Amino acid sequence: MKKVAIIMGSDSDLPVVSKASDALKEYGIPYTMRVMSAHRCPTKVADFARTAEDNGIGVIIAAAGMAAHLAGAIAANTTLPVIGIPVKSTLEGMDALLATVQMPSGIPVATVGINNAKNAAILAAQILALSDPELADKLKKQRVKMTEEVNAKDENLQKNNF
Amino acid sequence: MKKVAIIMGSDSDLPVVSKASDALKEYGIPYTMRVMSAHRCPTKVADFARTAEDNGIGVIIAAAGMAAHLAGAIAANTTLPVIGIPVKSTLEGMDALLATVQMPSGIPVATVGINNAKNAAILAAQILALSDPELADKLKKQRVKMTEEVNAKDENLQKNNF
Amino acid sequence: MKKVAIIMGSDSDLPVVSKASDALKEYGIPYTMRVMSAHRCPTKVADFARTAEDNGIGVIIAAAGMAAHLAGAIAANTTLPVIGIPVKSTLEGMDALLATVQMPSGIPVATVGINNAKNAAILAAQILALSDPELADKLKKQRVKMTEEVNAKDENLQKNNF
Amino acid sequence: MKKVAIIMGSDSDLPVVSKASDALKEYGIPYTMRVMSAHRCPTKVADFARTAEDNGIGVIIAAAGMAAHLAGAIAANTTLPVIGIPVKSTLEGMDALLATVQMPSGIPVATVGINNAKNAAILAAQILALSDPELADKLKKQRVKMTEEVNAKDENLQKNNF
Amino acid sequence: MKKVAIIMGSDSDLPVVSKASDALKEYGIPYTMRVMSAHRCPTKVADFARTAEDNGIGVIIAAAGMAAHLAGAIAANTTLPVIGIPVKSTLEGMDALLATVQMPSGIPVATVGINNAKNAAILAAQILALSDPELADKLKKQRVKMTEEVNAKDENLQKNNF
Amino acid sequence: MKKVAIIMGSDSDLPVVSKASDALKEYGIPYTMRVMSAHRCPTKVADFARTAEDNGIGVIIAAAGMAAHLAGAIAANTTLPVIGIPVKSTLEGMDALLATVQMPSGIPVATVGINNAKNAAILAAQILALSDPELADKLKKQRVKMTEEVNAKDENLQKNNF
Amino acid sequence: MKKVAIIMGSDSDLPVVSKASDALKEYGIPYTMRVMSAHRCPTKVADFARTAEDNGIGVIIAAAGMAAHLAGAIAANTTLPVIGIPVKSTLEGMDALLATVQMPSGIPVATVGINNAKNAAILAAQILALSDPELADKLKKQRVKMTEEVNAKDENLQKNNF
Amino acid sequence: MKKVAIIMGSDSDLPVVSKASDALKEYGIPYTMRVMSAHRCPTKVADFARTAEDNGIGVIIAAAGMAAHLAGAIAANTTLPVIGIPVKSTLEGMDALLATVQMPSGIPVATVGINNAKNAAILAAQILALSDPELADKLKKQRVKMTEEVNAKDENLQKNNF
Repeated sequence: MKKVAIIMGSDSDLPVVSKASDALKEYGIPYTMRVMSAHRCPTKVADFARTAEDNGIGVIIAAAGMAAHLAGAIAANTTLPVIGIPVKSTLEGMDALLATVQMPSGIPVATVGINNAKNAAILAAQILALSDPELADKLKKQRVKMTEEVNAKDENLQKNNF
Repeated sequence: MKKVAIIMGSDSDLPVVSKASDALKEYGIPYTMRVMSAHRCPTKVADFARTAEDNGIGVIIAAAGMAAHLAGAIAANTTLPVIGIPVKSTLEGMDALLATVQMPSGIPVATVGINNAKNAAILAAQILALSDPELADKLKKQRVKMTEEVNAKDENLQKNNF
Repeated sequence: MKKVAIIMGSDSDLPVVSKASDALKEYGIPYTMRVMSAHRCPTKVADFARTAEDNGIGVIIAAAGMAAHLAGAIAANTTLPVIGIPVKSTLEGMDALLATVQMPSGIPVATVGINNAKNAAILAAQILALSDPELADKLKKQRVKMTEEVNAKDENLQKNNF
Repeated sequence: MKKVAIIMGSDSDLPVVSKASDALKEYGIPYTMRVMSAHRCPTKVADFARTAEDNGIGVIIAAAGMAAHLAGAIAANTTLPVIGIPVKSTLEGMDALLATVQMPSGIPVATVGINNAKNAAILAAQILALSDPELADKLKKQRVKMTEEVNAKDENLQKNNF
Repeated sequence: MKKVAIIMGSDSDLPVVSKASDALKEYGIPYTMRVMSAHRCPTKVADFARTAEDNGIGVIIAAAGMAAHLAGAIAANTTLPVIGIPVKSTLEGMDALLATVQMPSGIPVATVGINNAKNAAILAAQILALSDPELADKLKKQRVKMTEEVNAKDENLQKNNF
Repeated sequence: MKKVAIIMGSDSDLPVVSKASDALKEYGIPYTMRVMSAHRCPTKVADFARTAEDNGIGVIIAAAGMAAHLAGAIAANTTLPVIGIPVKSTLEGMDALLATVQMPSGIPVATVGINNAKNAAILAAQILALSDPELADKLKKQRVKMTEEVNAKDENLQKNNF
Repeated sequence: MKKVAIIMGSDSDLPVVSKASDALKEYGIPYTMRVMSAHRCPTKVADFARTAEDNGIGVIIAAAGMAAHLAGAIAANTTLPVIGIPVKSTLEGMDALLATVQMPSGIPVATVGINNAKNAAILAAQILALSDPELADKLKKQRVKMTEEVNAKDENLQKNNF
Repeated sequence: MKKVAIIMGSDSDLPVVSKASDALKEYGIPYTMRVMSAHRCPTKVADFARTAEDNGIGVIIAAAGMAAHLAGAIAANTTLPVIGIPVKSTLEGMDALLATVQMPSGIPVATVGINNAKNAAILAAQILALSDPELADKLKKQRVKMTEEVNAKDENLQKNNF
């Protein structure tokens, strides 16, 4: 099974990003988690991206804040799907969102919501599930479970007679 | 090979969205293109999404403007990867961007830049290429070609002695 | 008398939304309060909306944050008036506001201010009062009371000789 | 049947607002259309609002741009439901949207999307339809028609073999 | 000497607004401070504004948040200069700023910065000083003092050898 | 009678600013109109501001776009009331608005709406009218005329039977 | 004398960027102008930046739009001063501004205004002038000329008797 | 060696600005730190800027919040490179950013990210390093160190087996 690589621009992003690794663990998807800055170690980032496919990686998740170039810098060096997580640190995360999503024609970044690392992991799982029926099944079951949880809260609220 | 479905919220989005179908054609990826509104025909959208996988679809691209719920409404009814294109019609497309990307935990939408239908198609291709080495090869060749085009422009500019 | 349905996208919205139920109680308007997510249980939301009128509901209030599709998803499935409360959770609530108010032509959502659940309840009451003179009277009396409260504060401030 | 009043802050708003009167005509809802500025003739606006109910008006639609106070100024003087249309003239209409929707607690304005006069009319119809089964029926039929129109476009697109 | 009236939309604005009254006291300018809401007591606001000149008021300062109509509602009913203070309560105060400053042609509001009540008072003093040489003199002296205070901080910083 | 000075940062602002001089002419208020840039001729701006009062000027109107410092630079060098007109040239005028209105404590700028030069002139007239009963009378008459104009449009619209 | 390199992300930026080369020509500063995309030819960009100093370049100007990573990608690979020009192509240029200016700690980009290529060139000249008294002199003369031009416009306006 | 001047608009900016002086100390660059307000002591600011070059200053760093005119006011009075730090105090620092970066043609300010005083210092060092090989060397070494620090965090993360 192909691995997911989770890259963060700074280890201060770990509390946000760990929700992605938690979700991948739940799905049993192998992953590697790295700290690499597009601006402080650009060569390493480029090398990582260029060799990712050969290293068994299928999807790359990149999380960064401010002028968040990390996902774009990786996407520039690979044709694997790259998922970008805009991290909120300034301007409510609007700078990171725009710097991640507004990529030029030819080099897409699949952007999820601000700080929404869990959705990045689920998206990675959905991508890998296209050729992995077992994983596809897990995703469907989890979706059912999610629905049931909301249903339980709904029933609970109605019982509490608000 | 799995198909890509391209859904637009209104046929007025066609000039934007046709750049996605053009790109898919170039890659030889089979696709279907539909007009379905999350608000004007919600049942049809939900039915489409729920049966997409069984109908041979692998990736869904959804384009919508304003309070752009289409991608989210589709994502809510399938565990296939859903790519959202925020279409600019009001507020410079900022409303469509936020309504597409800021999905709740559990239901991701892989958002590309405002009006960036070509990138949506490339992203869909990157996703399908994970289990299709021939397509992966096409993507790499296109990337090289893209680089060469920029290089040609660079040489041209230098010759012109600006 | 027709009921008001108050739907929230997540039970974490309850502290915001309970101001709506408090206000409805004050007016003696029957209501039901539910947790239903447009993204996590879309079928339930659509079923609820489609049967709302037959279930004696006259007005639906929907509260959601981020890419707040709940009010729109309900409005897509009923011709009852739907009131949207954008809930602030990210981007100061601007994402929820735009995702709620910028509906496409044909499917309106009556949007109130960010987190302004009380106004949603008053608006629902104003709508029901059109065919309920007693409720209309309550609304007028409450308005007078509101004016008197501001007047009292004004007098108090003047007495305190600032 | 109660009338709808459509008020615009300036006659330059007529091209936007006429979509509301067109829609009301289609539904056979009686209406009156007025030019009244919250800032240039505040007494008239207040008098209008205070006497609206006695003059057979059931719902008031108010359209204004910039620091759009019109809907709020009307809502301050009546307990009838007031629908606000933010008109785009500066800042992409964002100023008008915020000035219309962000009302203080106690005085709601049912805000529709920027320039979305048609939705204001449909919302007014939905409100009046609560006590008018014939109108409710028209709304449901129109909704079906709208769905069919999108379906026709969808079929057309598929035929055209894009 | 003409008085300054300070009006706030809600007594919760008092901590912001009291910086205006403090400054007026310092200048020895007579003032009256009131709580009046453009939306909760519109008649009182209009009456106040219409009679302000006859009641010896020269300048009116109005502070309000959200869809801040107060300054505009006053300006609509008087030709005295009206100073608007946008109060920050939602959206970082951006809604109040736009609702205060973006007035239609013909009815100006002299807007100061978000929460900047002190500047509102100084502006009122500058206006009254045009026909009051003694007050003009106080303003010039205060300006000199302000400059000296910054100079003292500058010297202090340099001494501290940062 | 004290003069009004109208200063623009660039002669390209003349089409916007000339609405201010037109309005002053209508009121019979003497004025001088100048091109002076806070950044290209800062000394001249400072000298102008410091000597304005002695040169018979009562109110200064300053219009500038982008990082619009002109009004602030003038206000820093005089205690006369300074009115700022944010001119729209980039970012829909939002940069000019914020750079004009968000002045630090102690140095107010009376800011009007984006490009709203006419309101700047009316505000200047309102300020001068405090000690000029004839001008005050003109302002009241013009206000009445403005109301009548809107009334005429209202009657016209009603006659046209929309 | 050290050269200035002007890099643009796309040759469609040439109309904006040519104002930078025009200004450098005026100052007699040698320059090279290139098209290189941070996303379409990342290796070339990195190589260029890493060898720039050895190639006699003193200052690098980089212009890009949307998720404008170019200046940051260059700055990541050199310690020469890098000047960023945010190019307006979407969202009024706000995305490019934030993606250029909000760099992480350690890797600055000297950002000028949106589309303000001329200022980028002047800034480059100011930097080089620190060790080039002749260039410093040219800058001072040009500043004087700029002041005189505004003065001429000012006199012209006063003559025209507006 | 030329000095760097660090100017802040208010001594409340010191906690932000001290990161610039810390960085300059590390590089062994002589500096002077001052409190001078563009609005409260404009003459002093202008005098400072006009004499800066003669006083041995090579680069000026200016930090201010809100309608942040300080950097622009300095740049207007010198042809030395001026670096602007937008300080966050209101509106998430967006007002300060726009007031600093959106300078008119002819007078650039080299703007760094909101509150990013460290980057201002590094940029100043990069500028001075153009004619100071020893300083250039320090910058390169620091860059290597920065890369090593990120590498260490990366290794640490991988060891911790997340």
